[in-house]
Amino acid sequence: MSTIKLTYFDVDGGRAEPTRIALSIGGIEFEDHRISFSEFRQMRSSTPFNALPAIEMNDGVYTQSNAMNRFFGKQAGLYPEDPWQAFLCDEVMDAIEDLMHFLVRTFGMRGDELKAAREKLVDGAFTTYLRTLNARLEAAGGEYFADGRLTVADLKVFVWIRGLDSGVLDYVPTDLASRVAPLLVQHMERVAADPGVVAYYEGRGK
Amino acid sequence: MSTIKLTYFDVDGGRAEPTRIALSIGGIEFEDHRISFSEFRQMRSSTPFNALPAIEMNDGVYTQSNAMNRFFGKQAGLYPEDPWQAFLCDEVMDAIEDLMHFLVRTFGMRGDELKAAREKLVDGAFTTYLRTLNARLEAAGGEYFADGRLTVADLKVFVWIRGLDSGVLDYVPTDLASRVAPLLVQHMERVAADPGVVAYYEGRGK
Repeated sequence: MSTIKLTYFDVDGGRAEPTRIALSIGGIEFEDHRISFSEFRQMRSSTPFNALPAIEMNDGVYTQSNAMNRFFGKQAGLYPEDPWQAFLCDEVMDAIEDLMHFLVRTFGMRGDELKAAREKLVDGAFTTYLRTLNARLEAAGGEYFADGRLTVADLKVFVWIRGLDSGVLDYVPTDLASRVAPLLVQHMERVAADPGVVAYYEGRGK
Repeated sequence: MSTIKLTYFDVDGGRAEPTRIALSIGGIEFEDHRISFSEFRQMRSSTPFNALPAIEMNDGVYTQSNAMNRFFGKQAGLYPEDPWQAFLCDEVMDAIEDLMHFLVRTFGMRGDELKAAREKLVDGAFTTYLRTLNARLEAAGGEYFADGRLTVADLKVFVWIRGLDSGVLDYVPTDLASRVAPLLVQHMERVAADPGVVAYYEGRGK
């Protein structure tokens, strides 16, 4: 395996964060290349699909965060070998990716337009997805989304719920997850306390 | 495996079509449940994530087309076992899912608003994605996207390019793919001629 360089925005969240954690848990060395939004505007046309996160590996540059989560998840012991459990893991990861798409549409909006769009998201897709994810977790036993252990699906949901709770998204109430999907808040705390996750953030100095 | 019932709109395209083909190639029996848009409006709130395609299997109802493609792709011999080839397959499938998200945003628009949105898509994301997919196919040897053989990534791109070429999307020139990504048009013809794909459409009476 050649050197790995993961490029994304300088936030401990969003689409690259589960991959960063999975790489760390797997003991896979990588350059955590963090860029500003203005840097992205300058380099955007040179990334495949004009997308971030982008990853350099195997002498190429690739994209798609869930493809990365699956690839490194296999190396890090964070992806189910059983096909059915892998399906459950995949469904959850792709559902969060839907939410990212819905959210990104509101970036760049301002004022009343942003407020209306975010409130529609909160009452609509966010609530619907939180409820289904809560039910999925319950059906899987309440602790982890697949395979009865930590997988990349857990990392993906953890990062999402932590983001919702953080207040970083204007017009998204920080108590939304705890009102609509209380199991997901417990799950967030469970994942945050995972030794591999703790070690990653200690390594980041946080 | 319990009975499988795949619910989607009554079109030979979109998000469910690669899964239908993969199920057919794998010889996996399923009910091809096709519904109208008004039927979807009535049943929407009862599907997980309010999403289609939805699939009944293993005593539950699940969503996420690429999760289905991967699950049935494994059973049908249409998904790479090698993790790196699986990554290449996954990246392509998720890129097409991005395109679906961009396209779905224009559904429900009319007149000048639709025209402007579609033209922006054609000059922007559609062209960018077609170019990157064309380059990906070339890098993989020019015939298939991963593993040197037909995989669910090929089915996903095939359905997308066939849709672009069909003229079903207003304000999307039917020669877009042939101008921007000629390898993808050849690829579409290659996949259309695959015996498993031919057999699926013959079974559909088409």
